[in-house]
Parts: sequence; structure tokens; C-alpha cells
Amino acid sequence: MAQQPFTFDLIATDEAARAGVFHTPHGALETPVFAPVGTQGTVKAVTPRDLSDLGATLVLANTYHLYLRPGDDVVHELGGLHDFMGWDGPILTDSGGFQVWSLGQINAIDDEGVTFSSHIDGSRHRLTPEQSIAIQQNLGADIIMCFDELADPDNLDYIQVALERTHAWARRCKEAWTNRERQALFGIVQGGIFDDLRKRSVEELLRIEFPGYAVGGLSVGESKPDMYRILDVLEPLLPADRPRYLMGVGTVEDLVNGVARGVDIFDCVLPTREARHGAALSLHGRMNLLNARYHRDPRPIDEACECYTCQHFSRAYLRHTFKAKEIIAATLLTIHNLHTLISLTRAMREAIVAGRFASFANQILSELSIHANKPDVSS
Amino acid sequence: MAQQPFTFDLIATDEAARAGVFHTPHGALETPVFAPVGTQGTVKAVTPRDLSDLGATLVLANTYHLYLRPGDDVVHELGGLHDFMGWDGPILTDSGGFQVWSLGQINAIDDEGVTFSSHIDGSRHRLTPEQSIAIQQNLGADIIMCFDELADPDNLDYIQVALERTHAWARRCKEAWTNRERQALFGIVQGGIFDDLRKRSVEELLRIEFPGYAVGGLSVGESKPDMYRILDVLEPLLPADRPRYLMGVGTVEDLVNGVARGVDIFDCVLPTREARHGAALSLHGRMNLLNARYHRDPRPIDEACECYTCQHFSRAYLRHTFKAKEIIAATLLTIHNLHTLISLTRAMREAIVAGRFASFANQILSELSIHANKPDVSS
Repeated sequence: MAQQPFTFDLIATDEAARAGVFHTPHGALETPVFAPVGTQGTVKAVTPRDLSDLGATLVLANTYHLYLRPGDDVVHELGGLHDFMGWDGPILTDSGGFQVWSLGQINAIDDEGVTFSSHIDGSRHRLTPEQSIAIQQNLGADIIMCFDELADPDNLDYIQVALERTHAWARRCKEAWTNRERQALFGIVQGGIFDDLRKRSVEELLRIEFPGYAVGGLSVGESKPDMYRILDVLEPLLPADRPRYLMGVGTVEDLVNGVARGVDIFDCVLPTREARHGAALSLHGRMNLLNARYHRDPRPIDEACECYTCQHFSRAYLRHTFKAKEIIAATLLTIHNLHTLISLTRAMREAIVAGRFASFANQILSELSIHANKPDVSS
Repeated sequence: MAQQPFTFDLIATDEAARAGVFHTPHGALETPVFAPVGTQGTVKAVTPRDLSDLGATLVLANTYHLYLRPGDDVVHELGGLHDFMGWDGPILTDSGGFQVWSLGQINAIDDEGVTFSSHIDGSRHRLTPEQSIAIQQNLGADIIMCFDELADPDNLDYIQVALERTHAWARRCKEAWTNRERQALFGIVQGGIFDDLRKRSVEELLRIEFPGYAVGGLSVGESKPDMYRILDVLEPLLPADRPRYLMGVGTVEDLVNGVARGVDIFDCVLPTREARHGAALSLHGRMNLLNARYHRDPRPIDEACECYTCQHFSRAYLRHTFKAKEIIAATLLTIHNLHTLISLTRAMREAIVAGRFASFANQILSELSIHANKPDVSS
């Protein structure tokens, strides 16, 4: 029988690394997990069938994009995001905040919310915490996010102002969140690269209390040591019985380092975006398939990879279809790149359960650094 | 046990319509059959896995394109087209002739062959009957075609010259064709819309003798009555024990009329090209998914269709993903359009075997004409 929605079972831990199961209305989600990004209600270049086949279990969609087009009311009328996009596994939506800051043109920010212009047609819109939650409830994802304010990670003055607002908005988001049996609202820890602000943020969010906690404002330009130190600061403060989501992170190196610091959920556009630009990711690094050296190369991207692409297609074919601007090139590389990250999170889970995560992580990271300087996997 | 390659078993006939099995080194091909076009070694916007799933059995690839890029030597070195493109069912290649005439810039035509400039980089190339067969033997398709000369269907003077050359080239192609156990060479009947030239062409090709016969130079601007009359003229002249391939034809109406006139094999870019432009084909006509009327339409393209697209996605979703310029829109419509034509050929086969082809064909054609003027399926 299905567990009560949104309980998080900790199956095993290995130092800070965690193997868990997060129960959602669309199935039990095994963690650690990497979520492909389906910005406009589709993970670019692949079908939901491809996603299931390559092992995806959780998909992210963007509230900002779907609110603007086709409209959350349309998605709701069509049965919600799961029906709309043909994905019956768990879905996570962000709050729209990040995109308002990075894509829209901001007209005004105040304590009430944000006024911005659409990146599609310039039309003017207003987003408040209440509005973000209402949109996300219309979309109907299993995991929804608090509306927060994005600040430069090293701008202390602005971060302090944004942080207070983010906490006030988190309180309002929780108030606005009514569909609690079907959707879990996650709070977002902010505070840039400042340890004390991060601590204050997590304490404040724990007071409000959420079914899960996200770490925002990382992987936005700060150094790797800064990112990993912040995760180290947060790890003992976050409750063990709630899932932890590191937003926007998706390199092999960061996934391994994130899991080592207790992260359960990741998402990132990197594997799908790189795929559309001809780059294959593997545990050995990055390979640019447009390179002339692959013109007659009969090997798959990665001899050890079990994805559909590596089982059926050569580097020469991928290079040819990229050069010829064929859609299949983006599809096949997307399948490979997502499979790489998703099978990595699955392998990490097994290592945690087997109590050998540290040696597994060291092996992956040293492999990466050995290959980082080899010409045949650099772009 | 597999039959001797390239025997054609006639399973049933119903007036001129035929249900057959063409034995190839990559499997027994049930006819009538519609072949999706994979110009550059991929059927645009779908994977071979999608193709198998939607019921495709035969795929066409273009000699002209693959010769220019990546080069037939590269494809050969990588194990031939089947390995290269990840398709282990039967493949058909054209001769390159049609594309030289329609895409390349012709520099000179003489009895020996054609000199042309590449549409990709302007480089100069020469194609002769011997060269076309050598390229096609490198590519390794199961069915290969004679190199012929394309002429305007109603230009009698030019057609007569081109026809003599086409017959001389057919003789040279047969001479050059050495890989006879692995590849079947088809002759191509030409002669435009002139009954007597068509008769002369088929008689000449029968003297040379091929394992199969194609009808070329139709669906290139002539009227439907002209096309159907030519097929009526050829039908009793073509040998019953060889497959018949009507090149470049792929509307619902033409497939039904072609099968009624004894055609076994069809190919056309129409369903895949229309898909990438937002048009869904069905037995009820053509539907432009970009139309605003579909903005909130929860129905699939065709309630009766069993394809992946119609089983999982609404018109509203297809419209949204087209508007948002997402690749999945082209993929899902390609799946639907190909499934429509391929399941139509399968249904025609069943009707022929059951001896009820005429009533089946009439039903399809009258359905088409009823819907042709309805606004919701017009563009």
C-alpha cells in the first residue's frame, strides 16, 4: 500500500550521504535523484517514453514559462501538468522567482511582490508569493517551491534585504498553500556564500516548517569551495526526516559532492543544454561530438554506457547528424547525458546502501580529474 | 527458415490490389508498405525505436545526401547504412538522380552521366550509372535503384531523349550491380504522362529484367487523373511476381488509389515534412495544430488513432509545444503522421486478404471527401 504522501523514509546513511524514499502522489521517489528540466512542459528533444526508458523518475517544469504560455489555467483545465505533458511520475515546479529575475525584465520589486515584463511579448505581469502558489496549485506538481528573491551570492547588503523578504514570503507561501494532500511545499534556504546568513535562513525556515527544504542561490557564479562549504554548514542543521534539494546543480562533480553533503534531489539544464550543443557528458568528462576526430569513429560515446544511444549509435553517426543539423542528434545526446547523471545517482544510492559511498565517490572524482586534461574528451 | 532473398510471394489479390511478402536480407517485408524517408540517414525528428514502435518496416535513405555527407565510404567503413543509422529492418536507397536534378546545380548532362555542384558547399561532382550503383553498394541498402534522368512530365521532346538515356543507363546499372545476393536493383519506368512512352519504358525494362520495378516521374506536378491513368496503363504490363514501387507518393488518397492499381511500395517526405510544420494527417484530412481553436482542446488529434501521440497528448499540448518551438512537437506529429499512413497500408493489406478491398477503399475515399471541406481539419 502507498505510504502517506510526503513522508520521507531514510533507508541508509553513510556519513552525511543519504539513501531515501520520498512518497509522492505519483509514486515513491528513490533518492538521491537527478531531475531533468522540462522548462515549457517538455524535457527538450525527448519524449516522456524516452525519459522513462533512460531511468528518469522526477521531472522539473518551470512555473514562469507555463504561466506565460500556455497559461496555468489552460494546464489546469487539461487535467494538470501530469496529464498535459504525458508524464505520470513525480513532477517538481519551481516558484517562477528565478526566471523572473533572470529572464523577465523587472519593473518593480517591493515587499508585496515583483512586477515584470514577459520575455515572450513584453506584456506586464505581477508575481507575489500568493500568486506563485496559486499558479503552482493550478499546475499540480507533486513538489512545489516557495517564491523567493534571487540576490548575487557575494553582495552582502542586498542579500540581507533579500533574505528577510524571502523569509516573509516563505511564511506567506505556506499560508497560501492549501492543496497539502497532493502537493508538498518546500522552503528555500538562501543567504549567498555567508555562513551566518545561511544558518539564520535555515533556522527561520525550520520555524515555519516545510515537508522539504531546498538550497537556493548556489551554482550561480560562486566558487566550488564556497558551494561545498555552504552545504557543509547546512548539512547538520537540516532535519534528517525531510528531503533536501540542491537547486540548479548538475555536473558529475557537483552531484557527487552534493550527495556527500547530504543532498537528496538535484536538477539542472546542463545535460540537456549541452546535448543540443553537441557535447556528450560522461564520467570521463565532456566530449564535443562536432570534433573532426570523430568523423570515422565507430565507437559509442562511452563503451561502458548502457543507454539507448551508446547501445546503437557510433560517434561518427552522432557527428554526422549534428553536422547535418538533424533533430536526432539532440535527442540521442540528451538521452545519453541524462542517462549518465541518472545512473550516477542510482549508483551512488547503491553505494550508500552498501556502506561504501566514500570510496565510490573518490573513485568517480579521481577518474574525472585524470580525464579532465585528456584531449579526446575536451572540447 | 528465411526465403531466398528477393523472392516476392503474392499472398492475395483483389482485382488489381495485391498483398505480398518481399523477402530481403533484413527480413520479410509485408506489402503494401509505406516507407518513411530518412534523407540523411535519419527519419527527421524520430529515433529508430520510435519507428519500430509506430509500425514502420521499410525506411528510405537518399544516396545523393549520404554520398556528399558523411560520404558513402564512411558509411561503408562503419558497417553500412543499417549499422550506421541503427535500423535493422529493410532499407531502400534511391539512385541520387532525383536530388541531382532537384537540389544540386547541374553543370552538364551527357550520355555518360551528370556533372553537378553540391547544394552544401558548391563542390563539383560527377554521377554516372556505374558511380550511383557503386555508392549504393557501399551504403548497403536492401533495395537499390537505377540511375535515371528526371524530365518534366509533360515535355514530350525532352522526355523522349531522357527516356532513351534512362533505358541505356538502366542497362549499365544492371551491369555494374554485383552485390546481387544482398541487394535487389529495381528498374524505373519513366515516360511522363504519355501512355505510349510508359509502355515502351516498361517493355524495355522487362527485357533488361530486374527483381523489382519502380514507377518514377509521377507526383511531380501532373494531375491526379494523369497519375492514375498511367498506373492503370502499367498495371497489366508489370509482372505479377515482382514488387512494384511508386516513388515519392504519400497522401492518403494516393496510397489508396495506388494500391487499387497494384502498387506494393510507397515513400514520401510528406508526412514527416508536414509534421515539422504543425500539420497532422488523418483519414479525415489535414489539421493545422497551430490554429488557435486548439488552445484548450483536450482531445487527441484523432480519437480512433492508436499511436503514442494520440494515446498520451492533447491537441492543446501539441499546439503549445509548437508555439513554444519545442522539438517534441515535431517528434509527436511525425509519429502520428507516419502511423496514419503505415496503419492505412496495413489495413489495406487486411482488406485485400479478406477480399473486401474495393469497399474499404471506397469508404476511405468517401470519408476523405466528406471531411475535405470541414473547417476543423483544414489549414
